[in-house]
Amino acid sequence: MAAKQHLMTLADLSVPQINRLLAHSLYCKQISKPWLEPQSHKPTKKTQLRMPSQSLFSKTIALLFSKRSTRTRLAAETSVSLLGGNALFLGKEDIQLGVNETPRDTARVIGGMTEGIFARVGAHEEIEELARYSPVPVVNALSSLWHPTQILADLLTLHEHSHLFAKPDSQADSTLEYKNMQTTVKSRKREKVMSLPELRPLTISYIGDSANVLHDMLVTYPRLGHSLRVATPSKYRAPSEVWKRVEELGCDKGIWWGEDPKEAVKGADVVVTDTWISMGQEAEKAQRLRDFQGYQVTEALCQEGGANPDWRFLHCLPRKQDEVDDEVFYGPRSLVFPEADNRKWTTMAVFDLFFGKWDISADSSKPKPKSSEEQKS
Amino acid sequence: MAAKQHLMTLADLSVPQINRLLAHSLYCKQISKPWLEPQSHKPTKKTQLRMPSQSLFSKTIALLFSKRSTRTRLAAETSVSLLGGNALFLGKEDIQLGVNETPRDTARVIGGMTEGIFARVGAHEEIEELARYSPVPVVNALSSLWHPTQILADLLTLHEHSHLFAKPDSQADSTLEYKNMQTTVKSRKREKVMSLPELRPLTISYIGDSANVLHDMLVTYPRLGHSLRVATPSKYRAPSEVWKRVEELGCDKGIWWGEDPKEAVKGADVVVTDTWISMGQEAEKAQRLRDFQGYQVTEALCQEGGANPDWRFLHCLPRKQDEVDDEVFYGPRSLVFPEADNRKWTTMAVFDLFFGKWDISADSSKPKPKSSEEQKS
Amino acid sequence: MAAKQHLMTLADLSVPQINRLLAHSLYCKQISKPWLEPQSHKPTKKTQLRMPSQSLFSKTIALLFSKRSTRTRLAAETSVSLLGGNALFLGKEDIQLGVNETPRDTARVIGGMTEGIFARVGAHEEIEELARYSPVPVVNALSSLWHPTQILADLLTLHEHSHLFAKPDSQADSTLEYKNMQTTVKSRKREKVMSLPELRPLTISYIGDSANVLHDMLVTYPRLGHSLRVATPSKYRAPSEVWKRVEELGCDKGIWWGEDPKEAVKGADVVVTDTWISMGQEAEKAQRLRDFQGYQVTEALCQEGGANPDWRFLHCLPRKQDEVDDEVFYGPRSLVFPEADNRKWTTMAVFDLFFGKWDISADSSKPKPKSSEEQKS
Repeated sequence: MAAKQHLMTLADLSVPQINRLLAHSLYCKQISKPWLEPQSHKPTKKTQLRMPSQSLFSKTIALLFSKRSTRTRLAAETSVSLLGGNALFLGKEDIQLGVNETPRDTARVIGGMTEGIFARVGAHEEIEELARYSPVPVVNALSSLWHPTQILADLLTLHEHSHLFAKPDSQADSTLEYKNMQTTVKSRKREKVMSLPELRPLTISYIGDSANVLHDMLVTYPRLGHSLRVATPSKYRAPSEVWKRVEELGCDKGIWWGEDPKEAVKGADVVVTDTWISMGQEAEKAQRLRDFQGYQVTEALCQEGGANPDWRFLHCLPRKQDEVDDEVFYGPRSLVFPEADNRKWTTMAVFDLFFGKWDISADSSKPKPKSSEEQKS
Repeated sequence: MAAKQHLMTLADLSVPQINRLLAHSLYCKQISKPWLEPQSHKPTKKTQLRMPSQSLFSKTIALLFSKRSTRTRLAAETSVSLLGGNALFLGKEDIQLGVNETPRDTARVIGGMTEGIFARVGAHEEIEELARYSPVPVVNALSSLWHPTQILADLLTLHEHSHLFAKPDSQADSTLEYKNMQTTVKSRKREKVMSLPELRPLTISYIGDSANVLHDMLVTYPRLGHSLRVATPSKYRAPSEVWKRVEELGCDKGIWWGEDPKEAVKGADVVVTDTWISMGQEAEKAQRLRDFQGYQVTEALCQEGGANPDWRFLHCLPRKQDEVDDEVFYGPRSLVFPEADNRKWTTMAVFDLFFGKWDISADSSKPKPKSSEEQKS
Repeated sequence: MAAKQHLMTLADLSVPQINRLLAHSLYCKQISKPWLEPQSHKPTKKTQLRMPSQSLFSKTIALLFSKRSTRTRLAAETSVSLLGGNALFLGKEDIQLGVNETPRDTARVIGGMTEGIFARVGAHEEIEELARYSPVPVVNALSSLWHPTQILADLLTLHEHSHLFAKPDSQADSTLEYKNMQTTVKSRKREKVMSLPELRPLTISYIGDSANVLHDMLVTYPRLGHSLRVATPSKYRAPSEVWKRVEELGCDKGIWWGEDPKEAVKGADVVVTDTWISMGQEAEKAQRLRDFQGYQVTEALCQEGGANPDWRFLHCLPRKQDEVDDEVFYGPRSLVFPEADNRKWTTMAVFDLFFGKWDISADSSKPKPKSSEEQKS
C-alpha cells in the first residue's frame, strides 16, 4: 500500500519521477483537451473520447493561499474539476495561518476533512509545518524558497517545443516512451502509448533575482543534463538552505553563476527571468530597480552576449516591463503563454498522482493492479 | 464549425437571436426545475425527468468580478452547475485587472485555462480589452455601459406574465414556436415543443438614472416592438457611445425621452427603475438625492401620470426606498422577485449557447448534427 | 408532501429526531469513507462501494458567512460535494446582510436561486429574519445564541467512543437500531442495518463562557439523559432567550450551574470548554482574562475537582492555551480532532435531510416510497 508523500520542491523527486510527472502531464493534456472543446466542435464519435482519471471523484482538495495567485489557482481549480473532485479555496480572508490557531491544529483539521492540501504560503517553514501535521499529502503551490509546479510547466513546454532546439545531428524522433496504463472510455482493447518528445541538453540562462523559480531550476535542470547560467546582482544569491540541496544533488557542477547578464546568456538556448519585485517587496522597489539595472532581457542583450540565435524566452508571469521588453515578451521567441497553459496540465498530473492515487513511483511500465475506479470508467 | 462570439450588449444580437435566447431560457427553466425539487417531492418516474444540456461538462467558467454582485454571481454559479461545469469566482481580492498585470496578459492566461469568461468590470473598456485578447468567449456580466443579461431576464419575466397585459382583442394563445432539439433522458422518441408566450407591444417606462440597465433597454425594446418612455434629470443622459448604437439599430424612433416622470409613465404597461446611487457613487449621494427628487415610483405618481391601470413594476435589485416605495415594491404590481429568479435561467441559456456550444444561430428549427454529448444523455 | 423546515437550534428538534440525525451521520460517514481513500488503497471490488445519497444532485447550497469559519465551511463544502451538489460560498466581502439590501430581499433572492441556506451570521435575529423570508430551508451554521451542528458532532463523537465510558454492568453491545433505507450501488437485495453505539448517561461538565456551544448543550443533553454541570463567572450567564427554551423543554432539571470550576468537574465523564475570547470580543480581552482566571482545564483541576478518572476532553476549536493546556489538549484524553472530523459527517446528515430530502421525520423504520433518485443509484 502506497504511502502519503508531500511535494515541497523538485529536489524531493528523482529524475525518473520527474520524467514520469512530465509524461503524465502530457497524457492528461491530450485526453482532456477534446472534452474542453465547444460542443459544436467535438468529435461526433464518443469512442474518440477517453475519460481523464477520476481519482479525485467525490474528494475535496483544499487550496490554502495566503497570497493571491491567478495562474496557480486557475491551474489547481480546473485540474481538480477534470479529475472529478472539488476544490475548496481558502484565501487570506478565510484563514490566517497561525493567527487564530496554530498551523499544527489547522493542518490536522483541514487534512481531516479533505484529501489534499495545495498551499501557497509566505515563509517556507509554514508549509513544512503544515506537511508535518497533515494526515493528507501537502503540495507546495509556491513558498519563499521553492516553486516546484512552475518548473514542471517550464519543462513540459520545452519538451513540447523540442523541435525548436533540434540540431542537425540529433535524432529528432526519439522519445521518452511512456506506456500509460489508463483505460479508454469505451474499451480496454489497446493501451495508448504516449510519448514525451525528447529534449537535447540545453543551455538555460536565468537573468534576475534569485527567488523560488530559480531555486527549483537549480536543483532540477543539471540533473536532467541541462547547463544553467545565472546572473544576479551579487547581493541577490540563493540562501544556504537552497545551496545545501543543490550540493546534495550534485547540481552545482552544472551551474555557472555571475553578475553579468551578457556573460550569462552566452550560448543560451533558453532565457528565463522573473519579476524583480514580488508581492510584499514593494517597499524595496526603488532599491531593486537600481540593483537590477542592465538586467532587462532584450534582443540586444542576448545578441551582444552571444545567445544561440534561436533562443527562446520563458517567464512565469505576471510580468512587468522592467525585466523584459515587449519585443521579446510578445515576439516569436516567447513561449510564455504555452508555458502558462501548461501550469494546468502539470498541476493535473501532480494532483492525480500525489492526491488521487498516492502513487508516484517512477516506473509506470509494469501493469498495476486495476482499481475499481478505472474499471468503472 | 461555429466561431467564438462575445456578448457585450444585446445590441450585438439580432432580434431572432434574442428570441432564441428567451425561448432557450424558458426551456432551461422547465427541464431544470424538477431536478431542484426536494427528493420527497420529485416525480417517482425517472422518465419524467429530462437532463439539462451538459455542454459545460468538465469545463470551467471564470467569473471575473471586480465588484460585488449577489444576483449575477448566484445566477452564474448555479447555471454552470446545472450545465455540468465548474464556476471559478475571482473577486477583487483575487485579481485586480491591470494592477499586477495588463488586462491583455490576464485575458490570455485566464482564457487559456478556462472555457469562458463572465466579467463584471468597472469601465466598459476593460471588458472590451478582455474580449480582444481572450481565446474563449467573454460575456458581459455588468459594465459601466451595458447589462445585457438583466434585460434578458426582464424580457423572460414579461413573456411569462404576458396574460397580465392581454387585451380583449389579442390572440392570447399565439406563441413563438421554439422547436427544441435537445433529447430526453430516456428516449428520443418525441421531441418536446416548448413555447414562449407571445407578448403584445407594450409601453415600458423607465424613471431614474441613465445607467447600464436602461442602456440595454434602449437598444433592445424598440426592435421588439415595444415603445420606451424615459424620464431622467437633464444632466443624466445616456453617453454618446450608447446613442450611437441606439441610432445604428434604428431604436431612436421608439423612444420618448424627457425630464418629467409623470409624463414618462403615460400609458405605461410596465414601469422600471433602478437605484440612483450605484456602487462607487456614494460620494455624490446628497447631490443625487436632490437631482432625483420626485422620481420615486409610487401609486400616486403612476395614477397622476396616466399609466395603464394594470401597470406592473420591474427593478433589477438591490433596491433602496428612494427610488420606489414599499407599497409598489412588495405589492401585487411587483414582478421583481420572479424577475430576479429569471436571472438564473437566462444566464443558463447564455452560458449554454455562448460558452458550451458556440452556437447562437437564430434558427434552431433545422435539426443540427447531434453531438456526442447529446447522444450520451 | 414534506414541508420545508429550518434548523435554528437543537431545541427545534425532538429527541427521536436528534437520534435519527446522529444515526444518519454515522451512516453517511461509513458509506462515504471508502470513496475518499487514495485510489491505490481502494477496495478492488466495486460492489463493496455504496453510493452516498445524491439528494443535492445539480442543486446549490448557499453558504452565507458573515464571519470566518474554517471548520464549519470545510464541513459544509465537503458535504455538499459528497451529496452531489454545489456549495456557493458568500463571505463578508461578497455580501453584507442589511447593508446594501434588506435581509428580507436577500433571503428571497438567494432562496429563489438555491436549494438551501447555511448561514453563519452575527446576531441571532439575523438568521431568524433570513428564515422568515427564505423560500428554502435555512440551517444555522453558528449565531450569537446557538450552534446546533457543533453539538451534533460532539454527540456523534461521544457515541463513537462510548466504550471509553463503559461501566462493568452496562450492556456494552446494545445499540440504537437504525434501519437505513438507502440502497446499495449494485443491488437492493439486503438493506444495511447501521447501528449507533449506545451511550450510557454521562456527566458532562462545561467550564468557561456561556456562549452558543453551551446553549445548544443546555437544550439537548438533559433530554438525552445526560447531566450537565456548568461553571461560568457570575456575570457570564446564558441570556433569557436561552433559558426560556431550556425551561420549555424541561432541561433545567438536569443542569447544575455554579462559579467554581472544581465543583463543576465533580464526577465528570466529559469536560468541555470553548475559547473565552470569540471573534469580535478582542477589545474585552484583558477583562475576560481576569474574569476567567482559574478556568483553564488541566489535569490538576480535574483531579482536585474529582472528575471520573477516565474523563475525556472536547473543544469545538479553534483553541487558545488560555482555556486548556497542551497536556490535556494534545494528550490521550482529548477527543478534539475526531470531534472536528465529525463536523463533516453531521453536517452531511443535516444537509441530506433538511436540504436534499425535506424529510426529518423521526421514524425511519417504515419503508418510504422510493424516490427516482434512489432507484437510479
